[in-house]
Amino acid sequence: MAEPALLACDWGTTNLRAWTLDASGAVLVDRDLPLGVSRLAAGEAPRVFAEQVRPALGAEGLPAVLCGMVGSNLGWTTVPYRDCPATLADLASAMTEAPGSPDVRIVPGVRSRGFDGQGDVMRGEETQLFGWLAQHPDHARGRSLVCHPGTHTKWMVVEDGRLSDFVTAMTGELFAVLSKHSVLKSDAPPDDSGAFDAGLAAAGDGDALAARLFTVRARVVGGGAAPETSSSYLSGLLIGADVAATPQLLGAGAGGLSDEVVLLGDARLCALYARALQARGVATRAFDGEAAAVAGLRALHLAGRSP
Amino acid sequence: MAEPALLACDWGTTNLRAWTLDASGAVLVDRDLPLGVSRLAAGEAPRVFAEQVRPALGAEGLPAVLCGMVGSNLGWTTVPYRDCPATLADLASAMTEAPGSPDVRIVPGVRSRGFDGQGDVMRGEETQLFGWLAQHPDHARGRSLVCHPGTHTKWMVVEDGRLSDFVTAMTGELFAVLSKHSVLKSDAPPDDSGAFDAGLAAAGDGDALAARLFTVRARVVGGGAAPETSSSYLSGLLIGADVAATPQLLGAGAGGLSDEVVLLGDARLCALYARALQARGVATRAFDGEAAAVAGLRALHLAGRSP
Repeated sequence: MAEPALLACDWGTTNLRAWTLDASGAVLVDRDLPLGVSRLAAGEAPRVFAEQVRPALGAEGLPAVLCGMVGSNLGWTTVPYRDCPATLADLASAMTEAPGSPDVRIVPGVRSRGFDGQGDVMRGEETQLFGWLAQHPDHARGRSLVCHPGTHTKWMVVEDGRLSDFVTAMTGELFAVLSKHSVLKSDAPPDDSGAFDAGLAAAGDGDALAARLFTVRARVVGGGAAPETSSSYLSGLLIGADVAATPQLLGAGAGGLSDEVVLLGDARLCALYARALQARGVATRAFDGEAAAVAGLRALHLAGRSP
Repeated sequence: MAEPALLACDWGTTNLRAWTLDASGAVLVDRDLPLGVSRLAAGEAPRVFAEQVRPALGAEGLPAVLCGMVGSNLGWTTVPYRDCPATLADLASAMTEAPGSPDVRIVPGVRSRGFDGQGDVMRGEETQLFGWLAQHPDHARGRSLVCHPGTHTKWMVVEDGRLSDFVTAMTGELFAVLSKHSVLKSDAPPDDSGAFDAGLAAAGDGDALAARLFTVRARVVGGGAAPETSSSYLSGLLIGADVAATPQLLGAGAGGLSDEVVLLGDARLCALYARALQARGVATRAFDGEAAAVAGLRALHLAGRSP
C-alpha cells in the first residue's frame, strides 16, 4: 500500500475538504467535513485540526498544506494577500507556517487592483487555478479567461502562467439571499431549463439588474408564468447578467468575452455557466475544481519545499 | 368643527396609513397602524377594518377608499390590474366594492407591458401618482418621468395625464436583504455622505452589478476602508446603478435620463435619489408621497361617484 506523504486541505467558510496524498499525488483518503471557519470559535482551528482533521484523514505527523479562508482573520492565522500578478512560485514562497505547528503551511490569498483600485480578493480559488495550470501546461503560455462559478464567482485572467487580474461577482450569493429572503423567494429547485433560458434572455446586457430582477415576480403576477419556474428563471437571469457584463471589467474587449472561457469548479454550476456563455457564442471547456484543488495544494507543497 | 366625509387608506404590505378627511379634503384624523396585509390571517381584513381601522379613525359609517396591497390576493379581495395607459378616470371606474361592505371601494393596481411583454405591476403607487397630478395640474400636459423610491422603486412615465408605462427596480429590497443576510451585512446606519458618493461613483453605468457589489467588501478587506462606511457605500452603489440604468428601459433615450425627474415619496429616500440624479446632471423636484396619497384617494373617490 502507498505511503501517505501529504495532508492537503481546502478549508473554506462552510466546509473543509481534505485529502491524504501519497508521494505521487494519488489520493489515499478523502473527507468533506462540516468544519468551515465560520463554524469555529475564535482560536479553535489548531485544536480542531489536530483532534478532528488529522485523525479523520489518517494523517498524523504528515506535512500539511491548507488553502482558503483558514488564512483569514476568521481562520487559524491571517496570511497577508499576495498581489497580482502572481505565479505559483510567488504563492509557494509566501506560504506561512501555522503558529505552533511547523509542519502546517497556509497558502496566501491573492489581491487584485479591482475597480477604481479598491482591490478585490480571493482565498482558495487561486489554488484551484494553479492546480489546473499544473494539470494543463498547454495553458502556461498565452492568455486564458478562467471562470470559477460559485457563491462569489471569480473571473480570472491568466497570462503566461501568471494570475494577472481577477474580479469577483456575487452571483451565487445574490441567488441565495433573493431565493430565501426576498419577495422572489422560492422553494422550487432551479431545474427548469426553459425558464433558465428565459432568464438568460431577460438578462440583456447585464445592466439594470435591480429592474430585471423584478421580472421574476412580474412574469408570474402580471404575466401568468408558473410560480415554480421562478427559481430557474432567477438563476438564468443572474448568471446571464454576470456573463454579459462582469468580464468587461477585466478589459476583455469591447466585443465582449474571449472566444473561449475555461470553467473551473463544481460541475453543475459549470454547466449552467456553459449554457449562458454558449448562448452568447462563447465556447467553453469545463474542468473539475476538486481535482484542481488537490493538484494545486500538491504543486504548492512541492514548490514551497524547494530551496 | 368640520364634518368627517371620507375614510382614505393606503393599505400596504407592512403598514396601513389612514386618514379621515372632511368634504374639502382636509385631514381630520391621521393614523399609521401596524396592520399591513402581510400581518393578517387569510380573510381577516373585513373584521380588522371594521373593528380596528374605522374606530381608530373615528370613521364609523363613512364611505371608504382603499389602495395598495389590500387589493391583492393577500388582502381583502383581488381587484384585477388595469393596463397602461391609464387615467385617473380609468382607475376610478375600475374601483371594486369590497365584498360585504358596499361603502368600501378598492382601487385597482396597474399593469404595464414590462420587459419582453412579461408585465410589470404596482399597487398603491398609482394612487400617489394621480394625487400628485391632481395637486399639480401643470403636469397634466406633456411628458414627466416620475420616480417613487422604495423597497420596489417605481419609474413611471406620465404623458398628457396618463400613466403610460412604468418599470420596477428592486433597489430598496436589494439593500435590505444584502445588508441583513449576505457577506455585505452591516448594522451601521447609512449616513456617511462621502461613502455614499463613493458608492455612486462605483456604480458605473449600472452594468455588472453582481461584481460591483463585491467592491463593498473588497474595499474594506483589500483596500482598508472603514467597515462602518459599508452601508452608505452600498446604498450609493445600488441607487447609483438604479438611476444609471433603469430609466433606459422606459426608452428615456440613448442619452440617458430626462432633463428632469420628479421624485415622489419618502423625503429621506427622495433626497438620496436626488443626490444620485444630480451627480449625473439630472435636475429633480421632490414631492411628499403621503400628501399625494391623500389627494389621490380623494380624487378617486370624487371621480368614482360621478355618474
